[in-house]
Amino acid sequence: MGDLLKGISSFRGAVFPTHSALYRKLAREGQQPHALMISCADSRVMPETITQSGPGDLFVCRNAGNIVPPFSTLNGGVSSAIEYAILALGVSDIVVCGHSDCGAMKGLCLPQMLEPMPNVAAWLRHSHAAYSIVCQAYPDDLSDAERVRAVAMENVVVQIDHLKTHPSVAAKLATSEITLHGWFFDIETGEVQVYDGVLARFTEVQEGEPLPVAFTGRGHPHVMPRIAAALAGE
Amino acid sequence: MGDLLKGISSFRGAVFPTHSALYRKLAREGQQPHALMISCADSRVMPETITQSGPGDLFVCRNAGNIVPPFSTLNGGVSSAIEYAILALGVSDIVVCGHSDCGAMKGLCLPQMLEPMPNVAAWLRHSHAAYSIVCQAYPDDLSDAERVRAVAMENVVVQIDHLKTHPSVAAKLATSEITLHGWFFDIETGEVQVYDGVLARFTEVQEGEPLPVAFTGRGHPHVMPRIAAALAGE
Amino acid sequence: MGDLLKGISSFRGAVFPTHSALYRKLAREGQQPHALMISCADSRVMPETITQSGPGDLFVCRNAGNIVPPFSTLNGGVSSAIEYAILALGVSDIVVCGHSDCGAMKGLCLPQMLEPMPNVAAWLRHSHAAYSIVCQAYPDDLSDAERVRAVAMENVVVQIDHLKTHPSVAAKLATSEITLHGWFFDIETGEVQVYDGVLARFTEVQEGEPLPVAFTGRGHPHVMPRIAAALAGE
Amino acid sequence: MGDLLKGISSFRGAVFPTHSALYRKLAREGQQPHALMISCADSRVMPETITQSGPGDLFVCRNAGNIVPPFSTLNGGVSSAIEYAILALGVSDIVVCGHSDCGAMKGLCLPQMLEPMPNVAAWLRHSHAAYSIVCQAYPDDLSDAERVRAVAMENVVVQIDHLKTHPSVAAKLATSEITLHGWFFDIETGEVQVYDGVLARFTEVQEGEPLPVAFTGRGHPHVMPRIAAALAGE
Amino acid sequence: MGDLLKGISSFRGAVFPTHSALYRKLAREGQQPHALMISCADSRVMPETITQSGPGDLFVCRNAGNIVPPFSTLNGGVSSAIEYAILALGVSDIVVCGHSDCGAMKGLCLPQMLEPMPNVAAWLRHSHAAYSIVCQAYPDDLSDAERVRAVAMENVVVQIDHLKTHPSVAAKLATSEITLHGWFFDIETGEVQVYDGVLARFTEVQEGEPLPVAFTGRGHPHVMPRIAAALAGE
Amino acid sequence: MGDLLKGISSFRGAVFPTHSALYRKLAREGQQPHALMISCADSRVMPETITQSGPGDLFVCRNAGNIVPPFSTLNGGVSSAIEYAILALGVSDIVVCGHSDCGAMKGLCLPQMLEPMPNVAAWLRHSHAAYSIVCQAYPDDLSDAERVRAVAMENVVVQIDHLKTHPSVAAKLATSEITLHGWFFDIETGEVQVYDGVLARFTEVQEGEPLPVAFTGRGHPHVMPRIAAALAGE
Ligand SMILES: [Zn+2]
Ligand SMILES: [Zn+2]
Ligand SMILES: [Zn+2]
Ligand SMILES: [Zn+2]
Ligand SMILES: [Zn+2]
Ligand SMILES: [Zn+2]
Repeated sequence: MGDLLKGISSFRGAVFPTHSALYRKLAREGQQPHALMISCADSRVMPETITQSGPGDLFVCRNAGNIVPPFSTLNGGVSSAIEYAILALGVSDIVVCGHSDCGAMKGLCLPQMLEPMPNVAAWLRHSHAAYSIVCQAYPDDLSDAERVRAVAMENVVVQIDHLKTHPSVAAKLATSEITLHGWFFDIETGEVQVYDGVLARFTEVQEGEPLPVAFTGRGHPHVMPRIAAALAGE
Repeated sequence: MGDLLKGISSFRGAVFPTHSALYRKLAREGQQPHALMISCADSRVMPETITQSGPGDLFVCRNAGNIVPPFSTLNGGVSSAIEYAILALGVSDIVVCGHSDCGAMKGLCLPQMLEPMPNVAAWLRHSHAAYSIVCQAYPDDLSDAERVRAVAMENVVVQIDHLKTHPSVAAKLATSEITLHGWFFDIETGEVQVYDGVLARFTEVQEGEPLPVAFTGRGHPHVMPRIAAALAGE
Repeated sequence: MGDLLKGISSFRGAVFPTHSALYRKLAREGQQPHALMISCADSRVMPETITQSGPGDLFVCRNAGNIVPPFSTLNGGVSSAIEYAILALGVSDIVVCGHSDCGAMKGLCLPQMLEPMPNVAAWLRHSHAAYSIVCQAYPDDLSDAERVRAVAMENVVVQIDHLKTHPSVAAKLATSEITLHGWFFDIETGEVQVYDGVLARFTEVQEGEPLPVAFTGRGHPHVMPRIAAALAGE
Repeated sequence: MGDLLKGISSFRGAVFPTHSALYRKLAREGQQPHALMISCADSRVMPETITQSGPGDLFVCRNAGNIVPPFSTLNGGVSSAIEYAILALGVSDIVVCGHSDCGAMKGLCLPQMLEPMPNVAAWLRHSHAAYSIVCQAYPDDLSDAERVRAVAMENVVVQIDHLKTHPSVAAKLATSEITLHGWFFDIETGEVQVYDGVLARFTEVQEGEPLPVAFTGRGHPHVMPRIAAALAGE
Repeated sequence: MGDLLKGISSFRGAVFPTHSALYRKLAREGQQPHALMISCADSRVMPETITQSGPGDLFVCRNAGNIVPPFSTLNGGVSSAIEYAILALGVSDIVVCGHSDCGAMKGLCLPQMLEPMPNVAAWLRHSHAAYSIVCQAYPDDLSDAERVRAVAMENVVVQIDHLKTHPSVAAKLATSEITLHGWFFDIETGEVQVYDGVLARFTEVQEGEPLPVAFTGRGHPHVMPRIAAALAGE
Repeated sequence: MGDLLKGISSFRGAVFPTHSALYRKLAREGQQPHALMISCADSRVMPETITQSGPGDLFVCRNAGNIVPPFSTLNGGVSSAIEYAILALGVSDIVVCGHSDCGAMKGLCLPQMLEPMPNVAAWLRHSHAAYSIVCQAYPDDLSDAERVRAVAMENVVVQIDHLKTHPSVAAKLATSEITLHGWFFDIETGEVQVYDGVLARFTEVQEGEPLPVAFTGRGHPHVMPRIAAALAGE
């Protein structure tokens, strides 16, 4: 803890003074972040560093495996963060950010690793779909490393599907007021791959080109015409 | 119950004999239905009648509101029916069938109706996204009847999104071994409208034309190329 | 799905027109079914066919194993269907209908069958009492087929006990406004056996004789006399 | 706490020595109680005193309202006490003992009393059936005291219905190895009334006469004959 | 049950009459116990006998293992007893009383004992911390008897930690209006050992000396000064 | 999202290259963070910035209100992060870091703010003890700002009490292998206050002096001596 203690002093003495006006403004006016980022608790994946964000930029929810439990009658911390981000803060983007060499994804692939950790095992049931997909839809001869990477990438897509089950997200998607993003951070190369929902694949970000996204709203209350017609006919 | 009793006798005496060979075959060889239908408990919506199905054709799960709770750590009857249909029976199609004049959807629109029914109210939280969508994305001046119909139609789409969170479904979608369908039965006209996932709207079924579907598999293990490439580069 | 599609067209074109007046009436006046039937999702057990019922006759809840979870603080689809049937529709009869060759009951008897289906396994805990009864109270030398059949029959009785734990059912039983029925459909013979709660056994239905029932109300608020007396004495 | 401290010393110094042989025997050979008693936490209802029991006689589970939650997928302390009493200790009788002037039952009748106690309110949902029964099946002009007493008595019967949903109880009932009892202790008179399941009413215990019971086992594996017959016919 | 029946008669005829005035007073004025005792359901551990308490003295919650589940979103009987004792009855002391030769603690140490008792196994997860502590912090060469005793004692401390998570307890601790006690009853010697929270060990009660306690309130709203200062500085 | 996109490019192009050796090492050897930090999702509270930590230093769990649900039978993301941090990563310190102007704490103080956010409201039940403490143990005339600050500080202490209920934490505390810390970050001043568990108050960190901590292990398996003695005497 010595390093953390030094870090606190260093932040207070050397870093904070040059940003004190921004912090004061944020303290007085409250936060207005534009995006919610859901990422892994892994110490090597620092959301603000990867995105070069400053105070007030990113509302961040972190847990083992960057998991979003589906909306249900028993909700917890992630569901609350989503609800708060959308209804209280009005964010316009939600990013689910996975990463390479993820310990949680390794646990999915090697269940015996999880035996002494029953809570982690239960939590990872929310990623079970990603594991099932890799088992059934990928080649059988994947190496262990390939399998972990495949599960981690599919897991990002699975968690975006879970996001859509949250009523606050579903309503904003119906009015195209929110966009969902799936990212994958490679620790070794520092690169961020982005999920393109139209092509159903991850791609590299090209500067100067528009950012591919996982899912945008439908842009129209889509069953409406039929309702009008149907009811008119009654 | 007098009518039911007469019905049993009538079935046993007049109907069963003409189908006894089929029933015997089904008893001896077991069921092999091709589709799971999830529909409302409503007495006016009889899945086998609407589809003119016979014994052995449809695996049927019915509850108030044709609801599919998202996959979670606490699952119940619908999740079990899905899991059984896919893993034990190998169905290739899942239909979520909503309908007009649905009492559950009315309850969503008129919460005071639900006050004496706390379990129904809790159960309908799984349709809350449909209600939120209609509140936020539809015109404010919908009549009550239009609102109920809009919620019932959006509810079909919401439940299909919930279906995708079930690992057994997600895995089969990844290999394109299953297709998801969203239907809407109009009690007054006898018509079935079908959700077209590409157009994001309900359409009428046209005989001789292919059936629009809500969702098909991705057809390729989509992140695979990137995995190979990424790992090759390591 | 080709068959289903044809079925829809056939229903719309050939079946519906001869019943359109009834459907229109039901659409305009709402449903008023007299009975709730809780039966298995099995494709060979069609509640309306077995009872020769038409639109508007039966409110139907179907799940794997025709299970009724006991009333609890975490209720789901079956509890909601019961509550809705009693409080919103005012049904006077509830039928739990089991059947021969039930896959869910086989799963109870052969737990290894359930290993790849954790949700089904969890759901079947609600039938665990039936399995325990057969293990402890039946001869040890039952054949596998006998055991599955015994569990399926005891399961009907167990689910009726669960029904009584639901407050809406308990209250109607106390005023004799509702009757509980336990049925068992034999796929091979087309016969329906009926549970007789007084004799504690299943019997065949005899035309012209009254239908045996599983449970009727107590017919009187039974502790009342003692209350009056006790309080008078205070 | 002064009184409790004195009580401990008094027990150790004056009471224990005259029973030390029994306590030593019980410590060395373990407990073998014949009955499980489920009673209220109320300080005026002391199970061992009411039944003049000594150490080793009664396995006792006490909670607010002498409640037995129905068996479910989420079970707690009462379910565990039942399971342990039957499977580890082999008790042959289970008594649910309610009482007059019960604070929990008052809370059911006066929900505003429970507003600051959300956990108690949730817990009492397990007694909701008793309250519904009194509301619907008893005269409207009950005094408040009569209503509380009626709810407390019906609550005993409701909890016995809940007991039957526990697999360990259901199995022992099927072999007539266990008997269920419903008692009601009147604090003011010291009297214990006993529920007679055949007459469906509470009666006073008459010395020299057999004790009425709430429920005994069925005494025969009741669906067996039909199974044999049915399978013989196959 | 013959003994219990005789006991009831004996209580009514011989014991109650000498205490009838107290019982009448308690019936008319309600209970006002000063302490809540949470103890094991074990038939050899009778809370009122050990403390030589009479009617009206002790509010008693008993379950297998004298367990207090941590406060959570899904609470049951113990949480309700705590809430009721503090908010409705205003008790000033809570005692968690463990004991020697506890069957529940043996089950923790011998998991195979619990295999046929899944509910007990789940319930004992609330004592898992005690078991982990003994595994990791005690000598490896404990005999089985020593291990069970160590787990039972640590379990008392663990349940006191759980008590603190209940909001009603936490608030009373902050104002020093409640005291928590940890006791351990030795069946063979009749002795009660008391947990001394300051020394972090169990000690024997010495007559004439103050009773050691597990935890008292903080005696001051402890972060207050800083709040005043911090806000003054703003 | 434009800023985030630029941030990614900037990180990849300008920041990563100067740290690529460290990232490569971390990718190849895995993470070995010494501390788990549990902090709020608030965009103004960046754990790595406040502590000037780099990649690999801090395992970070973030949610609305820096909440740690007590260990229970239904655990989620925070419980899993704790279990993983202790058992898989072997962290030696856990920090719960609250902060000023916390929206979640405001929601606790102004429940009407939470009405449209039922999940947040449910999640904040885990902080209800902090709110109860401030209501009952603090002066009635706190300003709104003082009240929010007091709740946020007490909330840190409450969450540390919750931490102790997790078996993995409890076991490491018993062997003094882990230390718990409670911090409070003031957005306006950049200062971090630290909870001193011995003094039961927050203090400022003084450079050159040892860091006060919330809780350290007991340092000895504390009930051991009594066990040895007691068992010796048997
Ligand atoms: Zn990770
Ligand atoms: Zn409906
Ligand atoms: Zn079946
Ligand atoms: Zn009571
Ligand atoms: Zn015990
Ligand atoms: Zn915050």
